[in-house]
Amino acid sequence: MSEITKVALDAMGGDNAPKAIIQGALDVITKRQDIHVFLVGKEKIIEEELNKHEYPKEQISIVNATEIIETAEPPVMAIRRKKDSSIVVAMNMVKTGQADAFVSAGSSGAILVGGQVLVGRIKGVERPPLAPLIPTKNGVSLLIDCGANVDARPSHLVQFAKMGSIYMKNVIGIDNPKVAIVNIGAEEEKGNALVKETFPLLKACEDINFIGSIEAREIPHGEADVIVCEAFVGNVILKLFEGVGSTLISQIKNGLMTNVRSKIGALLVKPTLKETLKKFDASEYGGAPLLGLNGLVVKTHGNSTAKEVANSIIQCVTFKEQRINDKIKETIQKKVE
Amino acid sequence: MSEITKVALDAMGGDNAPKAIIQGALDVITKRQDIHVFLVGKEKIIEEELNKHEYPKEQISIVNATEIIETAEPPVMAIRRKKDSSIVVAMNMVKTGQADAFVSAGSSGAILVGGQVLVGRIKGVERPPLAPLIPTKNGVSLLIDCGANVDARPSHLVQFAKMGSIYMKNVIGIDNPKVAIVNIGAEEEKGNALVKETFPLLKACEDINFIGSIEAREIPHGEADVIVCEAFVGNVILKLFEGVGSTLISQIKNGLMTNVRSKIGALLVKPTLKETLKKFDASEYGGAPLLGLNGLVVKTHGNSTAKEVANSIIQCVTFKEQRINDKIKETIQKKVE
Repeated sequence: MSEITKVALDAMGGDNAPKAIIQGALDVITKRQDIHVFLVGKEKIIEEELNKHEYPKEQISIVNATEIIETAEPPVMAIRRKKDSSIVVAMNMVKTGQADAFVSAGSSGAILVGGQVLVGRIKGVERPPLAPLIPTKNGVSLLIDCGANVDARPSHLVQFAKMGSIYMKNVIGIDNPKVAIVNIGAEEEKGNALVKETFPLLKACEDINFIGSIEAREIPHGEADVIVCEAFVGNVILKLFEGVGSTLISQIKNGLMTNVRSKIGALLVKPTLKETLKKFDASEYGGAPLLGLNGLVVKTHGNSTAKEVANSIIQCVTFKEQRINDKIKETIQKKVE
Repeated sequence: MSEITKVALDAMGGDNAPKAIIQGALDVITKRQDIHVFLVGKEKIIEEELNKHEYPKEQISIVNATEIIETAEPPVMAIRRKKDSSIVVAMNMVKTGQADAFVSAGSSGAILVGGQVLVGRIKGVERPPLAPLIPTKNGVSLLIDCGANVDARPSHLVQFAKMGSIYMKNVIGIDNPKVAIVNIGAEEEKGNALVKETFPLLKACEDINFIGSIEAREIPHGEADVIVCEAFVGNVILKLFEGVGSTLISQIKNGLMTNVRSKIGALLVKPTLKETLKKFDASEYGGAPLLGLNGLVVKTHGNSTAKEVANSIIQCVTFKEQRINDKIKETIQKKVE
């Protein structure tokens, strides 16, 4: 039998907590025996929710945490002051090795700060990037970095490329993943100071399959598997991706309701439309990992459903099984030593 | 009778040149007598194309230019060497006052460089931003800057906000346009170094209606009329907007063709779908102006249709009638003196 993966799950984080979060945990443990989930949060609330369900009791533990970090709170302060919050308690479990991974739909800021401050970076990793998957024509691409650490240096971006490649190869299963840097033109001499400095470093890097620049227009086509950028640009790409997609879809749906003819048409196209839009939903791959930490931290969407939570837990198993952190250590420390 | 607006049109630029470009010019002059178009490019080719049409001859002149700047050419070199290219010849016409404006679907790089080097900046303008309109739920927003000058300073962004406000008010007709800066969170303390430095300057600026930060997710909702950012980020937003939209639409269209039921549905929804997607096309407002120059330079899409060219020419008339450059001078020089 394979080893047990221990996942600390933030039962209090996200718009649909605790119901959808706990549901996600139960969905996954009823299918897989190699997972133990620690539900971290207010004991009574979690118990009450658990009591509504039948489930394999030996795969779930409750870890009491009396405080909650709200999304609007300044992250650094929140992490420092709310020692008994679900995020801080769960992060400490990863730090001490009680849990292999932490999954949360809670405050992005607190998760990013806590990851660095509490869980800590792998030796040699300069910055832990947040790396969500975005849907493309061909499947998904890893957008790295979308975190809170803006104004990156070229050496950070090179590490992002390496860590992203390891993740895409071993967790998503893409052989020899193609790496590109976000730029405003295809030519090597284009770009801002950061991109111009980083480009030759990526080109010279032996650990990755660098294919050059990618313009934002090409990102949805899926020609690169690992899309490297600094966090400000990454954040803009990630959020615009979601914003344009959802706006366009809602406009189309509203448009279809304007007359009888199109309403009938809408009924007929609904199943295939749903199928198409499902392809544009990356949540079946889980949440966004914060890479380069001594453990795994996964940030899921604030509005995560049980499905996204369940997939994020499975992602933690793959991450552990594939020894991603050992592979990151090997690659990053090779150059440091 | 109102004054004549003289527009130099690059007959050689863009994927559909010269046919669609010339068609656009003819479409507009047959409707409006207050416009004179100089078709700049290879005389014989233009003449041949013109001979296929009936049109008011007194509103069109051909200006011979024997060279063409290709999209792939390094812009600075091209502008310097190809003195008899359509872009250089037309830009010089704007500089000397023979034309009020220049419209081109040709090389973005050459147009941006030529605008600065040949047409020249209004005194006090630090950088001329390229400011395309992007479609939103509510209409359009001006995205400023999407040009070639990356790594901007805070003072540049403040000028972009002022020039963008003047344009949206007087050309697009939006009263007291709302200005926002692209950021990765709504709070004032968020952002990269550039945004953090620029935010208080925009807040203190009396000439604009600053509403704070805008996250990329909110851009398609149209809550800001003028969206300020430096050119690298602007370029990413513009191209991703187009990329996500077109990918999603093509996926939906392909999806609808997968079975008989959805094919029938597709026939029924086609008219309203077309109507909805039309709203997501900003080309009815013309092309992207390069603001802050001694004259007007408008960059249209490389694949511009006759309609986009015609609308860009009308945009030049409004720009002149509304004395946009006088208004930019007043606002920018007020602080300089």
